[in-house]
Amino acid sequence: MHRRDLLKLGAATLATGLTPALATTAPEPSSANVEQWGLFEIALPGPSTGNPYQEVSLTASFTLEHRTVQVTGFYDGEGTYRIRFMPDALGHWTYTTASSAPQLANKTGAFTCTAPTTPGNHGPVIVRHEFHFQHADGTPYFPFGTTTYAYFFTSDDNARASIEGLKPHFNKTRACVLPKPLGGDKEKQILPFPRANGTNDLTRFNPAYFQLLEKRLLELQRANIQADVILFHPYDAWGYKSMPAEADDFYLRYAIARLSAFRNVWWSIANEYDLVKSKTMSDWDRFFRITAAEDPYSHLRSIHHSGPIYDNTKPWVTHASLQRYDFENTAERRLAWRKPIIYDEMQYEGDIDRRWGNLSGEEMLRRFWLAIVNGAYGSHGEVFFSATGEASSADAGQLRGDSPSRIAFLHALVEKLTTTGLNAPESPYYLNAGTPGQLYLYYFDYHRPSRYDFPLPTTANFRATLIDPWNMTTTPVPGTHSGKSRITLPNKPYQAIVFEKISDNHNPHTEAAKPEVLD
Amino acid sequence: MHRRDLLKLGAATLATGLTPALATTAPEPSSANVEQWGLFEIALPGPSTGNPYQEVSLTASFTLEHRTVQVTGFYDGEGTYRIRFMPDALGHWTYTTASSAPQLANKTGAFTCTAPTTPGNHGPVIVRHEFHFQHADGTPYFPFGTTTYAYFFTSDDNARASIEGLKPHFNKTRACVLPKPLGGDKEKQILPFPRANGTNDLTRFNPAYFQLLEKRLLELQRANIQADVILFHPYDAWGYKSMPAEADDFYLRYAIARLSAFRNVWWSIANEYDLVKSKTMSDWDRFFRITAAEDPYSHLRSIHHSGPIYDNTKPWVTHASLQRYDFENTAERRLAWRKPIIYDEMQYEGDIDRRWGNLSGEEMLRRFWLAIVNGAYGSHGEVFFSATGEASSADAGQLRGDSPSRIAFLHALVEKLTTTGLNAPESPYYLNAGTPGQLYLYYFDYHRPSRYDFPLPTTANFRATLIDPWNMTTTPVPGTHSGKSRITLPNKPYQAIVFEKISDNHNPHTEAAKPEVLD
Repeated sequence: MHRRDLLKLGAATLATGLTPALATTAPEPSSANVEQWGLFEIALPGPSTGNPYQEVSLTASFTLEHRTVQVTGFYDGEGTYRIRFMPDALGHWTYTTASSAPQLANKTGAFTCTAPTTPGNHGPVIVRHEFHFQHADGTPYFPFGTTTYAYFFTSDDNARASIEGLKPHFNKTRACVLPKPLGGDKEKQILPFPRANGTNDLTRFNPAYFQLLEKRLLELQRANIQADVILFHPYDAWGYKSMPAEADDFYLRYAIARLSAFRNVWWSIANEYDLVKSKTMSDWDRFFRITAAEDPYSHLRSIHHSGPIYDNTKPWVTHASLQRYDFENTAERRLAWRKPIIYDEMQYEGDIDRRWGNLSGEEMLRRFWLAIVNGAYGSHGEVFFSATGEASSADAGQLRGDSPSRIAFLHALVEKLTTTGLNAPESPYYLNAGTPGQLYLYYFDYHRPSRYDFPLPTTANFRATLIDPWNMTTTPVPGTHSGKSRITLPNKPYQAIVFEKISDNHNPHTEAAKPEVLD
Repeated sequence: MHRRDLLKLGAATLATGLTPALATTAPEPSSANVEQWGLFEIALPGPSTGNPYQEVSLTASFTLEHRTVQVTGFYDGEGTYRIRFMPDALGHWTYTTASSAPQLANKTGAFTCTAPTTPGNHGPVIVRHEFHFQHADGTPYFPFGTTTYAYFFTSDDNARASIEGLKPHFNKTRACVLPKPLGGDKEKQILPFPRANGTNDLTRFNPAYFQLLEKRLLELQRANIQADVILFHPYDAWGYKSMPAEADDFYLRYAIARLSAFRNVWWSIANEYDLVKSKTMSDWDRFFRITAAEDPYSHLRSIHHSGPIYDNTKPWVTHASLQRYDFENTAERRLAWRKPIIYDEMQYEGDIDRRWGNLSGEEMLRRFWLAIVNGAYGSHGEVFFSATGEASSADAGQLRGDSPSRIAFLHALVEKLTTTGLNAPESPYYLNAGTPGQLYLYYFDYHRPSRYDFPLPTTANFRATLIDPWNMTTTPVPGTHSGKSRITLPNKPYQAIVFEKISDNHNPHTEAAKPEVLD
């Protein structure tokens, strides 16, 4: 194998981005080291005649000791084929290619998977503790995401502004693979399929489109932001939402072959799936099944709705991605689905005329807290009229709202309080979540009691801290607390308090808390 | 008939209150004038031995031309029997009594019913325009009420403080006939039945209890406050919530005989009926039927719940009295019941630890507006920890919250805008209520669009006024508006705007509003 056939996308090359030019600067395969959950890429020259996207098959088998992982390659245009692989275990991996084209078949090589050194590389996010998430290396991960639908195909300026706003505030964003019309001439946008005179060629792809997407995906990865990659959506100007099933599947397999080796990918099968009127439920099921089969790494899989919620009990769904803000139904949904729940659209902070697009920062923050104390998660989004009077619909660009810093404050608080996630008791009198006997995070929402007798267990001593979610202050309550504990509260709405266990109470003399009354 | 046998409670005597002493100062029956919807009372001496409450029957037939109205009298203690009558039509009325006691039978007399002169006497409140109310003389009446459960049996000081707070802010209050424990020695409270050594005599009444109640009822009447008289409730310390059915009915008939001639009475069969565990649905139905049969004036009848809502389609229910704040279900309820809806408990403004008792003034006001723009009504209540740390549960006394003046502002606005009540369109994009083609009152709740294209009809011209419900300001929008009308809005939550028709638009050149999108 020639040195130019191999591209290693480890820490060093990630830092400079994924560009075709980089493919020629990779080290010798024999000395290749790839960090765990980094991206190992093989580039091979191959047939460029006919339709290489459809007529040439290419796979590779990667082997570590007794394990073999088969991955699918893809045609990247201009006679270049690529195979990408994300190693999940340390050690010496070897590979062999297989192809319908003799030129691409039986290529072999090896690399060593080393411990990660890239800051923030904790591996992909997976489901843990039933209703929560975690990185593959065990690092806690709590999704506090936002929404940038057009991020993958927006301008470099917008993308840069997006990253600047996202990096300090969010660790996940939702973004579409297929384009949305951006307001200008829709025929001048960069598009994923060749298009001439208003007609799509759905049998081929435009590699430049996907290369741009991958550049953006790496920008997110460097900013420690998970990409909730939306595979289908209804916001279409070119006919992509109503392609024939063969084209849907062809596109889906190609996207998965290109993207699944990026560790920060989550699969969102669709945004507002039920607004894509040309497809049926069996289409959505099939997309899930193709995604589960084609992705060797089992990235997270969900589907986002507008009206009817997809049946999240189906086995290929890893977590629920909801467009709702009826948090009072969270417990019922957790019981029904036994999976994590992210309220991925709780309406948007903004000022536009549509009723989903004009929350105050305070109301957006309130919904984040309600999600958290119900044992779930929320996602942010914003949409403001631009200076020219047109709305920017949660696409990409500079953040203008007031909630992101307060959401980041809540995120930091959750990270400080727990490694496994917060769970809510059954029918709490006032909303709270935590770990029984250890931790109780209360959020009072519109309630503003001037005092409350908190029903703490008598078996432990707790410290208490008042939290003002909007002003981002924490105020320790003097003393320690055990059993029924009366605390004077600020007597204003939207306040919180947390009780953290500091020691066991082996000889409880304190008054036991009575069961709370369900007046 | 002796002059002392007759008491006329017209404007002059009402002004000094209803006390036994007044019974001797009434004018000659032959010259008696009673204003329409005033209270005409006959007092007769009769048997005081045995149990006059149970052993003596007493009725009177009041006749005006072709009409005869039969009413039931009651024993008021110390050998005095009374018959009360509220004349609803002008003219010369005559009456004849009937009784099992010869001493009370066949008494006759007459009076002239004259046009009302007492300020605020517009007759009882009745249902009109299907979902709304009106006084009997056609004067519009929109319920903006509060809650003073213990008002009828509270101290004079508390009652005076209540009236001072209620009079400028509210035109209705909910108050219990049967007592609630007030926090002191429950055996020292004034009680409706004789009680000795902790044992009730449920075969007799304590007239002084009802006389106090009637004094309070007249205080409300003079303040133009409708009394939503609660006949049964679960907040009991003496066994009144679990009396035998015969005692329930005996009490109910007695209360109706005493109170129904007061024009400001509404019947609330119960508060939180479903928390009175000793009674069944057929008991509540029977109470309704007794009330409908015994009250000659058909005062409004409702029943208030805690959990399950009573079947408000039953024919004896005049309007729904709900303990809910799910205003989004109002349209469905209006369609189902075809009756006015009052959200009589939407939680309380206050600062106590129970979750129903610590709304901010802002949240209480918000719920009033939500009730109104859904075509319904709300009721206020407040409960604060007192200086001594004990809660005053919406009983009676000084108002301490921030919402009453803002509720009165809304009340004045509604009175200015409509005579027949506000109705909401089917599935509005933003909440609004009014009269199609004439009036649109929008309330944006948590939405804060910086502008909106209001879909006004093109057939009329409207003036627009921005309303800040909390700061109680109204700001006219320059110009007139017709058809699709873009208005710049304050871009903060909880704002309102009203469009009032000022003229027809016979040659509409304005752009027709498109049907609103249900994004």
